[in-house]
Amino acid sequence: MDWKGKRVLVTGGAGFIGSHVCDELAERGASVSVYDNFSTGFREFVRTREGVQVIEANLLDPSRLTAAMRGVDFVFHLAANADIKDNLKEPRKCIDENVVATQNVLEAMRAEGVRQVAFASTGSVYGEAAVFPTPEDAPFPIQTSLYATSKLAAEGLLSSYALGFGFSVWIFRFVSVLGPRYTHGHVIDFWRKLRRDPTRLEVLGNGLQEKSYLHVADCVAAIFTAVDRSTEAINIFNLGHTGSIRVNDSIAIIARALGISPRLDYTGGERGWVGDSPKILLDTSRIRRLGWDARKSIEESIVETLRFLRDNPYTDRRA
Amino acid sequence: MDWKGKRVLVTGGAGFIGSHVCDELAERGASVSVYDNFSTGFREFVRTREGVQVIEANLLDPSRLTAAMRGVDFVFHLAANADIKDNLKEPRKCIDENVVATQNVLEAMRAEGVRQVAFASTGSVYGEAAVFPTPEDAPFPIQTSLYATSKLAAEGLLSSYALGFGFSVWIFRFVSVLGPRYTHGHVIDFWRKLRRDPTRLEVLGNGLQEKSYLHVADCVAAIFTAVDRSTEAINIFNLGHTGSIRVNDSIAIIARALGISPRLDYTGGERGWVGDSPKILLDTSRIRRLGWDARKSIEESIVETLRFLRDNPYTDRRA
Repeated sequence: MDWKGKRVLVTGGAGFIGSHVCDELAERGASVSVYDNFSTGFREFVRTREGVQVIEANLLDPSRLTAAMRGVDFVFHLAANADIKDNLKEPRKCIDENVVATQNVLEAMRAEGVRQVAFASTGSVYGEAAVFPTPEDAPFPIQTSLYATSKLAAEGLLSSYALGFGFSVWIFRFVSVLGPRYTHGHVIDFWRKLRRDPTRLEVLGNGLQEKSYLHVADCVAAIFTAVDRSTEAINIFNLGHTGSIRVNDSIAIIARALGISPRLDYTGGERGWVGDSPKILLDTSRIRRLGWDARKSIEESIVETLRFLRDNPYTDRRA
Repeated sequence: MDWKGKRVLVTGGAGFIGSHVCDELAERGASVSVYDNFSTGFREFVRTREGVQVIEANLLDPSRLTAAMRGVDFVFHLAANADIKDNLKEPRKCIDENVVATQNVLEAMRAEGVRQVAFASTGSVYGEAAVFPTPEDAPFPIQTSLYATSKLAAEGLLSSYALGFGFSVWIFRFVSVLGPRYTHGHVIDFWRKLRRDPTRLEVLGNGLQEKSYLHVADCVAAIFTAVDRSTEAINIFNLGHTGSIRVNDSIAIIARALGISPRLDYTGGERGWVGDSPKILLDTSRIRRLGWDARKSIEESIVETLRFLRDNPYTDRRA
């Protein structure tokens, strides 16, 4: 796709992945609207430059959203309630902010004749997968969390609008993403706990959970590879690393990087929380067949994340 | 399960399947609350007898719903927007009435300490299935309709509440159900068109769509078999006939039963409408392993449905 001169709306454009997508779009000559309510996004993540405008607004406000959609050519819908660990505490929130909000985006697009949208889903839609690495057409999983349920519902909205209203949709099922501007997940949890007390670390579960991680630069490269080269009405891609590590291994990397040796206190059990998958490893051959591959190792991703957190203490505002 | 003396709430209890479930529950000695807004249900379907009370209210009214949930032991959540063919006309409706409404049911249950729920999902969640007969763990399908998207989201809510809040849930993925009190679907569409003009019939698609049907008595027997004998936290069952027929075959059965020979005008294409599956045939070995099997043939089901429609002209109120 030639992005030069294209008008692109990025929901969650002040967030972790969204802000990197905005940078890439600006680099490619697109005119970018950052649509964000700054509930979890950061002003510091938005590079103000020519061709980038910020709209501070909520996805649950259809009139603002529809107004923002006017004249847009392509939407990256990356805003979400990503609080996977805690969404049982407020069960309605996840459905409102991920399902109803996504339908608002699609309805605003329909109202303004916008028909191309890329969407951040999650590898969590595979629940406790029966096959590893898990391909896009793995056995139909049982949903184990409200977060994944809400993302899968949003996927279904996108594919229904593709068939019903002629949309083209790109759906990305991510593993956890790391790197600069990372703002939530277990690396930041560990980092914050260890700064408070470097002598001990509470670990949710038994530490044996096996997870795959992707560097945000690799993630963004994969997104643009897919949108540029895959032209079906409905395009679904796993995005992840071919490798995986255990939670204990990532703790070891973090401890080494910080020069500490904390005592580990496990809460026990195979899962860190209700709905946690003991193992996530995605089959990414579909996106790799388009010529993409991850360049950063998982260890590099963790170390870069720690460096970002250390150098940008403003991210603690949301701690 | 011993239903005697149990307090059971049936959402959609005045609807097609719901009213049969209520009859069976009353037969088994349960105390039944029919919760229905009568938007598609019929008062005529509710057998007023001792132990059966009717609550005319909406699922999108959380306070009425929570009040109705007080003291309940078990919920059959069967109310739904089942307008599979037309839900692209009002895309938000399906999500409100099937996803938000289901979360309202689950939240009302949580508020009142009710933890057992059976739910009517749909075989449409398999989209255009890659495997026939289609088992519960078929390859992860792409959603092709808002209706199936909304039902799959509701399934995910149920399974998330099972894991997160200790619920026990029974999820039934139905094929089309036929028989007495049938009120929507292609048999009624054909019946109404042919009464207006018995000389010709417009057929959506090419008539070659292959569908499986289940008689409502077999459906209800399967539901109670599953709830009585399957005791996992999350129980998912396909419900359908081992047989299937083409739309053309069901037209031939209808024409023969009515003693007419209409000319058939096909709108063309493999699908009757956007999101229609050209073939539905579910693998029901999971429920059959529990000792259930369909007793009625598909032809008997169609003929009984026509007899019901002929003998109960009040159903035309919703035509």
